[in-house]
Amino acid sequence: MKVDGRAYRTIWLNVDGWGVDVIDQRWLPHEFRVATLRNVGEAATAIRDMWVRGAPLIGVTAAYGVALAMREDPSDGSLEAAWERLYATRPTAINLRWALDAVRDRLRPLEPSARAALGYAQAAEIAAEDIAINRAIGRNGLAIIRKIAEKKAPGEPVNILTHCNAGWLATVDYGTATAPIYLAMEEGIPVHVYIDETRPRNQGASLTAWEFVHHGTPHTLIVDNAGGHLMQHGLVDMVIVGTDRTTARGDVCNKIGTYLKALAARDNVVPFYVALPSPTIDWTVDDGVKEIPIEERSADEVDFVQGLGADGKVARVRISPAGSRAANPAFDVTPARLVTGLITERGVAAASSEGLRALFPERG
Amino acid sequence: MKVDGRAYRTIWLNVDGWGVDVIDQRWLPHEFRVATLRNVGEAATAIRDMWVRGAPLIGVTAAYGVALAMREDPSDGSLEAAWERLYATRPTAINLRWALDAVRDRLRPLEPSARAALGYAQAAEIAAEDIAINRAIGRNGLAIIRKIAEKKAPGEPVNILTHCNAGWLATVDYGTATAPIYLAMEEGIPVHVYIDETRPRNQGASLTAWEFVHHGTPHTLIVDNAGGHLMQHGLVDMVIVGTDRTTARGDVCNKIGTYLKALAARDNVVPFYVALPSPTIDWTVDDGVKEIPIEERSADEVDFVQGLGADGKVARVRISPAGSRAANPAFDVTPARLVTGLITERGVAAASSEGLRALFPERG
Repeated sequence: MKVDGRAYRTIWLNVDGWGVDVIDQRWLPHEFRVATLRNVGEAATAIRDMWVRGAPLIGVTAAYGVALAMREDPSDGSLEAAWERLYATRPTAINLRWALDAVRDRLRPLEPSARAALGYAQAAEIAAEDIAINRAIGRNGLAIIRKIAEKKAPGEPVNILTHCNAGWLATVDYGTATAPIYLAMEEGIPVHVYIDETRPRNQGASLTAWEFVHHGTPHTLIVDNAGGHLMQHGLVDMVIVGTDRTTARGDVCNKIGTYLKALAARDNVVPFYVALPSPTIDWTVDDGVKEIPIEERSADEVDFVQGLGADGKVARVRISPAGSRAANPAFDVTPARLVTGLITERGVAAASSEGLRALFPERG
Repeated sequence: MKVDGRAYRTIWLNVDGWGVDVIDQRWLPHEFRVATLRNVGEAATAIRDMWVRGAPLIGVTAAYGVALAMREDPSDGSLEAAWERLYATRPTAINLRWALDAVRDRLRPLEPSARAALGYAQAAEIAAEDIAINRAIGRNGLAIIRKIAEKKAPGEPVNILTHCNAGWLATVDYGTATAPIYLAMEEGIPVHVYIDETRPRNQGASLTAWEFVHHGTPHTLIVDNAGGHLMQHGLVDMVIVGTDRTTARGDVCNKIGTYLKALAARDNVVPFYVALPSPTIDWTVDDGVKEIPIEERSADEVDFVQGLGADGKVARVRISPAGSRAANPAFDVTPARLVTGLITERGVAAASSEGLRALFPERG
């Protein structure tokens, strides 16, 4: 998508042909910085310290990390060490392990001398696959947006609410929840997006808003408290969010607060969609509320807020009194009964065991 | 309630017997400052610039402002000028006009020489009445808390969730939503309160958390997104919030985001109570969603967050990218169907026309 009028992805080969350039997302939305990763250690740091984030982008970065390792030392020992080192950065990220296994399993049978080149090719393939999946999600979601647009007066935008950042910054390009929005823009359908700030880490205010400012997507930033009020007053036509993990029956684990928006959508008869690449479906889990353990993150994320100070420097301020205690559950689970549909790369499934199995019959 | 172990109210007579001391709430939760108001101009500034806030406290401060004016110049002209000057500070605050009218109507028939003394007496009476109302709300809410406590194992706390600040800082003492909590503590019932941060102005994180730190109330600060998840997991026994305005049929207009918590409470069969002094009931309005205009406040409140910087100074940081647009509806309306009960000074009413009329038959 676009940054200052120029097309970007979140990760690409440096002009030197072997370094790996990434957008260093720690500085967004206040500074746009590109970092070049030149060895496996730098790739590991970029993942661990969240220069890059989002499951698909983490997977691609790890794949390039293996390629960088093979360029320095293509031995079996180096391949295993790269896997271990990269896996340790964020061991709970689903795509990380999947991407690392895929690259290792492809490279291991090869002559060491062939490994670096195929490593790069494999990483590029995983990146291309991510983009293809997101464009397919985008096309399937676009059909929903188009239907709503057809009922509107010409020029009147389709109002979409989204939570957190399931945008192109979390993937290689297009994003998941944002892909239908970007494709609607490509097709000339007027859209307007309400972006939830998404406390405590503010990914809506810092990442989704930044994407939309740069890509020219009409949007309005709101606090997480506001969405229900907007729906009560008919200002939201549909909700689209991403997901970190979807269960086999369609329960959706996503950024904390997603569940509250799903409740408001149901109460106001607003369709609530979840965009997801099928690898984020966890076919081993049914009841998301009971079975998915929710990560409890540092209370500091609640007590402190980061932003741009009056001096133009990024700083953080404490919002709570000394002596106060905070809790910080990072995700919640939206039960399938509140989800209108799951927008996957294969099509839109009903949020139910039957709906998902119909689209993914190989899961039987 | 207590600050650093000492009992305080939000407003009291200075030791000199005529100045009016208030907690200057602009510096909370990071600094505890007391300001002395010595003339009507200072009283007007304290209300307009939000040194004091909360409908009941604004009313009492205005009443003392009239007394201060009478002390300097007890003429008819001075009385009218004081009314005008104080009313202009926050003309939409319901209790402000009510308090100003009450004091003016009492003083106007008097000899000028008698006005200052009676003005002080009248202001003290309004303050005492506020405390009496809040204690009555507290007793009525306490009965609900006690019932929940009786079903718990000994020592296990009653878990209460609250939104925004309807605490003693918004009144003269006790608060409205917090009164049942403070009375439960006086009675030795173990309580624990989840405090919503309450973006955009963070009254939960800055004011309610400060009250609880100082009064020793067990609490946990959470982001506004977290309440639904906590209720899904049985961690909340009841919700108590305040209200800015309640309609004749029991719709509740309160800080933005209250509606989302009411939806989560219903979805998880958690009782949802609203604490209110009966003067905040607007008997002229029925359908709160359709009839109550919602104040749209400055987008700056969304784009910027205030807190304590690393240098120990209060500062604000910008969380959104330059060029981003924000909207800031300040309140929402929770339909009566989601409200378990309205805790008033007369008792707990069902949130319905019948329920309210049964408790306030004079409104017939």
